[in-house]
Amino acid sequence: MDIGCFFLFPSHLLTFADGRSLLVSPCLSDQQELRLTERDATELRVQEVEEENRQLRLQLSQSQAAAAQVQYGSYGNAQWAASADPGPEDGENTAEERANRTDCPQRPMVERCELIHVACVCAGHNASRDVVTLVKSILFHRRNPLHFHFITDAVAHQILSSLFQSWMVPSVQVSFYDAEELKSNVAWIPNKHYSGIYGLMKLTLTKALPSNLTKVIVLDTDITFATDIAELWAIFRKFTDKQAIGLVENQSDWYLGNLWKNHKPWPALGRGFNTGVILLLLERLRRIGWEQMWRLTAERELMSMLSTSLADQDIFNAFIKQNPVLVHQLPCFWNVQLSDHTRSEQCYTEVSDLKVIHWNSPKKLRVKNKHVEFFRNLYLTFLEYDGNLLRRELFGCPSQPSADSLRLQNALEELDEDDQCYDFRRERIALHRLHLYFLQYQYIPAEDDTDVTLVAQLSIDRLQMLEAICNHWEGPISLALYMSDAEAQQFLRYAQASDVLKHRKNIGYHIVYKEGQFYPVNLLRNIALRQANTPYVFLTDVDFLPMYGLYSYLRKSIVQLDLAHTKNALVVPAFETLRYRLSFPKSKAELLSMLDMGTLYTFRYHVWTKGHAPTNYAKWRTATTAYKVEWEADFEPYVVVRRDCPEYDQRFVGFGWNKVSHIMELDAQEYDFVVLPNAFMIHMPHAPSFDISKFRSSSSYRHCLTTLKEEFHQDLSRKYGAAALKYLTAERNI
Amino acid sequence: MDIGCFFLFPSHLLTFADGRSLLVSPCLSDQQELRLTERDATELRVQEVEEENRQLRLQLSQSQAAAAQVQYGSYGNAQWAASADPGPEDGENTAEERANRTDCPQRPMVERCELIHVACVCAGHNASRDVVTLVKSILFHRRNPLHFHFITDAVAHQILSSLFQSWMVPSVQVSFYDAEELKSNVAWIPNKHYSGIYGLMKLTLTKALPSNLTKVIVLDTDITFATDIAELWAIFRKFTDKQAIGLVENQSDWYLGNLWKNHKPWPALGRGFNTGVILLLLERLRRIGWEQMWRLTAERELMSMLSTSLADQDIFNAFIKQNPVLVHQLPCFWNVQLSDHTRSEQCYTEVSDLKVIHWNSPKKLRVKNKHVEFFRNLYLTFLEYDGNLLRRELFGCPSQPSADSLRLQNALEELDEDDQCYDFRRERIALHRLHLYFLQYQYIPAEDDTDVTLVAQLSIDRLQMLEAICNHWEGPISLALYMSDAEAQQFLRYAQASDVLKHRKNIGYHIVYKEGQFYPVNLLRNIALRQANTPYVFLTDVDFLPMYGLYSYLRKSIVQLDLAHTKNALVVPAFETLRYRLSFPKSKAELLSMLDMGTLYTFRYHVWTKGHAPTNYAKWRTATTAYKVEWEADFEPYVVVRRDCPEYDQRFVGFGWNKVSHIMELDAQEYDFVVLPNAFMIHMPHAPSFDISKFRSSSSYRHCLTTLKEEFHQDLSRKYGAAALKYLTAERNI
Repeated sequence: MDIGCFFLFPSHLLTFADGRSLLVSPCLSDQQELRLTERDATELRVQEVEEENRQLRLQLSQSQAAAAQVQYGSYGNAQWAASADPGPEDGENTAEERANRTDCPQRPMVERCELIHVACVCAGHNASRDVVTLVKSILFHRRNPLHFHFITDAVAHQILSSLFQSWMVPSVQVSFYDAEELKSNVAWIPNKHYSGIYGLMKLTLTKALPSNLTKVIVLDTDITFATDIAELWAIFRKFTDKQAIGLVENQSDWYLGNLWKNHKPWPALGRGFNTGVILLLLERLRRIGWEQMWRLTAERELMSMLSTSLADQDIFNAFIKQNPVLVHQLPCFWNVQLSDHTRSEQCYTEVSDLKVIHWNSPKKLRVKNKHVEFFRNLYLTFLEYDGNLLRRELFGCPSQPSADSLRLQNALEELDEDDQCYDFRRERIALHRLHLYFLQYQYIPAEDDTDVTLVAQLSIDRLQMLEAICNHWEGPISLALYMSDAEAQQFLRYAQASDVLKHRKNIGYHIVYKEGQFYPVNLLRNIALRQANTPYVFLTDVDFLPMYGLYSYLRKSIVQLDLAHTKNALVVPAFETLRYRLSFPKSKAELLSMLDMGTLYTFRYHVWTKGHAPTNYAKWRTATTAYKVEWEADFEPYVVVRRDCPEYDQRFVGFGWNKVSHIMELDAQEYDFVVLPNAFMIHMPHAPSFDISKFRSSSSYRHCLTTLKEEFHQDLSRKYGAAALKYLTAERNI
Repeated sequence: MDIGCFFLFPSHLLTFADGRSLLVSPCLSDQQELRLTERDATELRVQEVEEENRQLRLQLSQSQAAAAQVQYGSYGNAQWAASADPGPEDGENTAEERANRTDCPQRPMVERCELIHVACVCAGHNASRDVVTLVKSILFHRRNPLHFHFITDAVAHQILSSLFQSWMVPSVQVSFYDAEELKSNVAWIPNKHYSGIYGLMKLTLTKALPSNLTKVIVLDTDITFATDIAELWAIFRKFTDKQAIGLVENQSDWYLGNLWKNHKPWPALGRGFNTGVILLLLERLRRIGWEQMWRLTAERELMSMLSTSLADQDIFNAFIKQNPVLVHQLPCFWNVQLSDHTRSEQCYTEVSDLKVIHWNSPKKLRVKNKHVEFFRNLYLTFLEYDGNLLRRELFGCPSQPSADSLRLQNALEELDEDDQCYDFRRERIALHRLHLYFLQYQYIPAEDDTDVTLVAQLSIDRLQMLEAICNHWEGPISLALYMSDAEAQQFLRYAQASDVLKHRKNIGYHIVYKEGQFYPVNLLRNIALRQANTPYVFLTDVDFLPMYGLYSYLRKSIVQLDLAHTKNALVVPAFETLRYRLSFPKSKAELLSMLDMGTLYTFRYHVWTKGHAPTNYAKWRTATTAYKVEWEADFEPYVVVRRDCPEYDQRFVGFGWNKVSHIMELDAQEYDFVVLPNAFMIHMPHAPSFDISKFRSSSSYRHCLTTLKEEFHQDLSRKYGAAALKYLTAERNI
């Protein structure tokens, strides 16, 4: 009988003396049961062990070549080695290095489905972007449930909480801790490092994280994982009963204090340790009074050092120099530090050695290293990786889905897959992954409460419109950008290189990650609308250029027409040019003469006059005061309203009826449409988008749009009663 | 002393009785040598074995849950088990399954840097696309040098050889074998499977592959790897001395012969084996006379079966039924078969079990399976993965770089990184990854030798121009498309959905994968030009629409102006509209009247008159016969020339001087520019591309362009002597 059979027909549990159980079963095809004695099982174990032995010997012979090539891990400095714990467990550290070398991973050291905790300090827009790449690299390799603990400022909290909520990765929990509340613990420490006060925040983790959390992996945001994080987590089991902090030695000479004349670093054991990757045994640290201990160390050293240079790392190292027994040194491939002139190359000889890459130079990807192309490729892999693909289920580890994901599942199950409009209905309930405030954003609210945000949405093929819009509108802008992960990076490079965009801080860029086959236009509008931070919004499209001065004119009109206390929707009349090169009219007079010359037209004059006919362009030509117009079927003007206006109906995706339905709902809620006599906007020509040409020709698309319209009407009647019947009648009369 | 130390300071070799060697060394930091007796070593081994034991028990306890959940691998059919080799090695197969289960991979079973051989039969455009995704999934996980052996038709050979040559992945060799030459070995077998004759080609591998190749992994093109292929390669070592073919059992019931009434499959052991993944021990097969053996089996079965239904798989199974000892059954996760209604779910309980996914249903990604979303995500990961990122070096396994890659390295080293125009110069020598004939292509050469190909290049933002161009030009087209891997998939979906494009087979689509920061316009033009399969080419840009009938008019003009025997460049006069919606002129007369009305202009009339001034539009208005014009500085007409015309100068990237330099070279080679009196083309308006707006504003860009121009002039003088001085003078006079 063969031991491998255990896994074939499990039917019996055999309990060993040590309390472990072994599942055994017969391999015979006749399925006859076979009772095993404990002795039998032991014999089987011996057989198995011998097989292991055989493999082991093979590994040994193979490792000769590798071992001969590099003295693996041999640059650990003698000074530290001398002061480290010389106890019996010390050997395990090197045994583990051996295990890594021979590629039989620590994985078995982690329980199946064991929850792994990761903590990260993250503040501001840039770190919030960086941390996503770290998270992707962890998720890509992981096979265990994860719990991320983020210490965040308000900005990172908003960004990451909405990101994870919309990401809905199975078996991933996320908790946030307010850095503001923790600041007082470290604010007293003068720090010269570019990370500022957040660089010191890791010192507070024993206090910040829940008191029942016993251990955690702490990571900087500029880390990339090249392996399953469970392998790192497994190292906690190698800690001796005195060790509490797992760290990798620094790969630069900073703490040796010989970099330049008068270079006086904080005290450290030899090269010191890098705090980009830390295994923190929280329960032990709490027990020994870590909080008081590091504080005393810091206070004493600051008397001569005056401030920290490398933030938390200085304090960790000074602390460790005094308490070396607390440290468990990790093999250096757990934190390959890619600054210029580091010894990082000595951490790995083969691709398979690489575990964690740390971009800890301010130069980041432009750092010099023999294998930097390799590292860059790994980094770019995750930077541009479609995060939606990481939503894959950890089957084998059942998990409680989030409320959102349950709602989505239920909604999906209610859909009929054979429905001709299934794709449309599915789109309506889709939850797109969301990265709010992708770039730096700073908006100081206007004092007079008249401020208005331009609200629009776009995909990458309209990006070149942004600079032009910025030149025409100096006020705040809220944009939803529909992009893939790779496109978001393209956008980032574009915005950082643009003279117009890079200094402009009052634009909120909200990335909605692509998913499904339709452009979810109304979802995008709602996201941009929700993120507007002013009392009023100008609901427009990205292929329009507002007249110069529209921003200030709107603010004046908002006061004049008392938008605060009325239900007015201010209509900005829309025009269009079919010419690519347009000299933009400087005034209403100039616009009117261009209209007369045929250089400009009223918007969609040629193809869809109804959309803007109620604006009454004839009246507008001579109007000097605002005038009210009546709603008519298919009216879809661009309007300025209070931010608390109804949202867009997300059932309309792709093209058709997306604005019409919104204007209809404004009318149902008894908004008045008031045309502004001195405002205008002009539609700029562009090639038809991919999507529009794809669907314009499709009869099933038109059929579904009709179905959706009917359902919208029904919903409207339900919501607004008999009054809403007028929309159905108006529609039928057309 | 800890056994793990062996790997830290290797210095001694210890030889065991069985001839194996063990490398031992002291762990002591004092580096004192320590001589070990064989007995010591055995004791160490015992310690090590005990440590292994400890881990093993942990694994065992962990696997209980999994084992209880699913009868892992338990559907192996009794019939086969009974007839399989019952020898002592048989146990290893299941032991290996156990090893896989517990995640301690077979990797140590493969020598460090051992070369792994993979064979694939690949024919036609679609399979050539599919196989790239397979190759990417292998490259992504691999840590060993690879040698791919492709049995190809002419189409796949052209596509894959240029792809791999331009891909330049370190430590990857590629060989091609002509399927045409092998056809006679299998052409006599009637086959009903959709794969046609190529489906049978795997039977010929012992003959097709080099006689010194001893073993190979054979894969279908619809396979995705989720793990390092070395793990699969390692299983060769588990073969008994009788086994020669490693296979996974079928996960469908096809061979059970009970799918429908009168369903009579070929003979097989139980469910039979799937041939999507095969380990072929070539040397053994050759020795036992495999070629004659399968042939005899096939001949005998065909007498009653008449034809194969599942191609090679039927013959493999009939053969195996007669020779079961030759088979080594692989654990079924090495070929998880995703057809509808398969038992594939029984092959894995956890994500980590998944090794190889086989999309062996004609439905491909639309197949039904509980975890299909997971599988799809994995597939999409590689489908859209940036193949350039796989160029990463296998450091640790030194390899001989290809000639191209050496040339590139040398060229790169010659560049000065501090040169202000470094990026430009780098771009010039860049070798972009290339996928020729990305879609179905079939061109039947015209008999009269007057045929002309429209040659152009584009990026994804100009894709919507393609349909319009197709409507204006019925002749052959050669297009270079500059795209990322993900964009190429977007393009594929677009083309497959387009009524205009999907039936059009005379367009060669050549994907040039994105790399670097400039649009390599002249490289793209050269690639499209080289792939033109007609004696003449019309060198144009994708934002122009040719007049209706231009194709036949050009063919007539080619004869009339004797392009075959003269050095003429026929100029097609270019016009432009600034209006997005244009009613395209049906004739020269209509065009002239639109010119007079101001609806059309001569091309770049407003911004760059010089580019086309020498065309002499005034003369053209009334011309009825072709007329010769003289070259002038900055002339950049669109021309028809023989295909053997000079190539474009690839130093010009991005925007500026890319056509000018080409026309200059035509003039230097004494081409005559002859304007066609009844041809015209019209530039359609579009928003400026991303790149152009990025660079138009850059002064360093303009500076570098000037530098490149000067260098081009110098090269021209070198090449064409004093005569070329006129270009420099002309340039200066402007």
